[in-house]
Amino acid sequence: MTRDDCGRLDAADPLAPFRERFALPEGVIYLDGNSLGPLPHATAERLSHAVTHEWGEQLIRSWNTAGWMEMPTRIGDKIARLLGAAPGTVVAGDSTSVNVYRVLAAALALRPERRVIVSERSNFPTDLYIAEGLCAQLGAGHALRLIEPEALPAALDESVAVLMLTHVNYRTGLMHDMTALTQAAHARGGVAIWDLAHSAGAVPVDLAGAGADFAVGCGYKFLNGGPGAPGFLYVAPALLDQTRLPLTGWLGHAAPFAFEPAYRPAEGIRRAIVGTPAVLGLAALEVGVDIALSAPMEQVRDKSMRLARLFLERVQRACPGMFRELCPSQDERRGSQVCLSHPEGYAIMQALIARNVIGDFRAPDILRFGITPLYLRHIDVWDAVEALREVMESGEWRAPEFQRRLAVT
Amino acid sequence: MTRDDCGRLDAADPLAPFRERFALPEGVIYLDGNSLGPLPHATAERLSHAVTHEWGEQLIRSWNTAGWMEMPTRIGDKIARLLGAAPGTVVAGDSTSVNVYRVLAAALALRPERRVIVSERSNFPTDLYIAEGLCAQLGAGHALRLIEPEALPAALDESVAVLMLTHVNYRTGLMHDMTALTQAAHARGGVAIWDLAHSAGAVPVDLAGAGADFAVGCGYKFLNGGPGAPGFLYVAPALLDQTRLPLTGWLGHAAPFAFEPAYRPAEGIRRAIVGTPAVLGLAALEVGVDIALSAPMEQVRDKSMRLARLFLERVQRACPGMFRELCPSQDERRGSQVCLSHPEGYAIMQALIARNVIGDFRAPDILRFGITPLYLRHIDVWDAVEALREVMESGEWRAPEFQRRLAVT
Repeated sequence: MTRDDCGRLDAADPLAPFRERFALPEGVIYLDGNSLGPLPHATAERLSHAVTHEWGEQLIRSWNTAGWMEMPTRIGDKIARLLGAAPGTVVAGDSTSVNVYRVLAAALALRPERRVIVSERSNFPTDLYIAEGLCAQLGAGHALRLIEPEALPAALDESVAVLMLTHVNYRTGLMHDMTALTQAAHARGGVAIWDLAHSAGAVPVDLAGAGADFAVGCGYKFLNGGPGAPGFLYVAPALLDQTRLPLTGWLGHAAPFAFEPAYRPAEGIRRAIVGTPAVLGLAALEVGVDIALSAPMEQVRDKSMRLARLFLERVQRACPGMFRELCPSQDERRGSQVCLSHPEGYAIMQALIARNVIGDFRAPDILRFGITPLYLRHIDVWDAVEALREVMESGEWRAPEFQRRLAVT
Repeated sequence: MTRDDCGRLDAADPLAPFRERFALPEGVIYLDGNSLGPLPHATAERLSHAVTHEWGEQLIRSWNTAGWMEMPTRIGDKIARLLGAAPGTVVAGDSTSVNVYRVLAAALALRPERRVIVSERSNFPTDLYIAEGLCAQLGAGHALRLIEPEALPAALDESVAVLMLTHVNYRTGLMHDMTALTQAAHARGGVAIWDLAHSAGAVPVDLAGAGADFAVGCGYKFLNGGPGAPGFLYVAPALLDQTRLPLTGWLGHAAPFAFEPAYRPAEGIRRAIVGTPAVLGLAALEVGVDIALSAPMEQVRDKSMRLARLFLERVQRACPGMFRELCPSQDERRGSQVCLSHPEGYAIMQALIARNVIGDFRAPDILRFGITPLYLRHIDVWDAVEALREVMESGEWRAPEFQRRLAVT
């Protein structure tokens, strides 16, 4: 394999035209689309129209005439198509953290005689913090039990009300078997919640086929919805009528503009809407979701696996023995990211960023690289690993400016 | 009083220059800024910069370099100045509905031996729905007790954990005496929550002086933050350390990027942040808040009262006996809106809107007009009432196209 081979693979890549849809700064290799996806060109135009025309000129009328009121369900239905979910099962809105709280409380309420939430010890912290806070709020013996991934099936006993997992682990890239774990939870009478933060738009997801009960996810990673984009929330159709999600806001009411004093849930998934839709954030998110929908998932997944394999093979050759591979070696068990660990991971990542190769660092020692097939090329992966090799050979990561830790990202 | 007199008042108005800061469609008299404030010109520029430069070019780095991570507290501190609140007591983010849930749950937890929430029967429904849902979730006898406004002080007995009111009623414009009612709640050992949806940027608010315990509010009305703008949340400084707000998301953690498995609340008001800040919505909100901060509140309030008085006097003359005044006649008891009731209120409002005088209708029979001194002139009020007179004299509201009810606004 040579850099020229990479160029030939890019020339033959059916997804290659997607790269032009994104504003990618000249000279930057962006391997952080799993933290914040880049700006689609169409988003700038869409937002400008939403601001200047819909808000500025049409004002309040746009709730009707520009379809603002339908955004949570319209965009939700689009996201559903990325998740193997039926129309009318997903709403877009609120943050992932808020949505985790809502589905977790609803799931616990479906198993009132049980008190235990099981999750993975290295699940993304907001899921764990929300669960911990909910248990403290509910009291009465509610508890969060944290388990290592391989021990999860055995941990699902008759005390477990809810299994709550992130499908693709943010640290390791390990992708859980959603169907098998959901079935294991169901077999013991539990409810299964899936956080799709690193899955939506990144890997094939089949919520209906897996029998998932609830799901949530994030708009600003692989969906390219913009910084702090609204998240989304899924409820299995069979559960919709018996589910009472907390945070029963006015736009989940059957007749929000009747201003009745008592709550009556809207039909179907509309009841999952809370407050007034965040129009600007949703407008940006919809553009990203539309792009994801126009890319065949089998092509995305195929290219993601090829790029990740190329990345790992190149690191083995260019930096032999220097990094520990934290992500699964089997393609099928790996989400759309590559994770390497190194005791000096922080400084090494800073040195890479200084060379315009942008990944991110995750404490305590993880270099994390998002694999985003819509705009990453084989030559980008080649060049990124070449930059890593140069950083390691030169020892430039030892420079003082790379040692001081910033608060964020 | 003549239309020329109105013109003279406008020429002498110290707030007149603010009108130029807003994109107001030609020929429209916008009396719905209490539902969705108009677009500030600066917002279009600010959002364009946030999208194209901060997101598009700087990508993930903007969390540090563009101050994205500080938006909830930076904008919160600015909103605090509008509310008579100390720095470090307000965060911006999430919807008003989500924030109502959080402060209500926290307030109930401060009075574990009590079970009753008292609110006003005609409070904005989302507050009531959220409270009803929280009571159902908590069980154990928690109940929401709805009271007519005049009976509120007497309803505050020793069973009441929380008094939750909207400072200015969305339907009637009645402004509660925040200090007196907070003191009445405290005297019986209760906690006071104030929803400032129709107050922030509209009327003087002194949360610290009134001794309020918690407050929430809305960004898209008088703060002109854009459709579905983030709301805000206030916690009294004395309560911060003992308050455990539910929805303990990762950005309220003491060290979000340490990715610890257990939750430790951040210092001060930062613990009130939930998920990743909604950057686009917050960027737009900040522009609106900055404008509000640059307008002296005593001038805003003075002009608001003058415009409302002019509106009501003109209606009495131009449409004698046709409407019932629903808003308080005393200036001091009225927020920044005028409300008239009429059995055919819906059709009359549609006919007004067809004449480019935009107010809104609130079921069952209320014509609601927002008084927004930053961009409304005396001649606008004059002309709006003239339009109302013509609608009534011509009977044009009887046209079939004005009878059919739309779903929204």
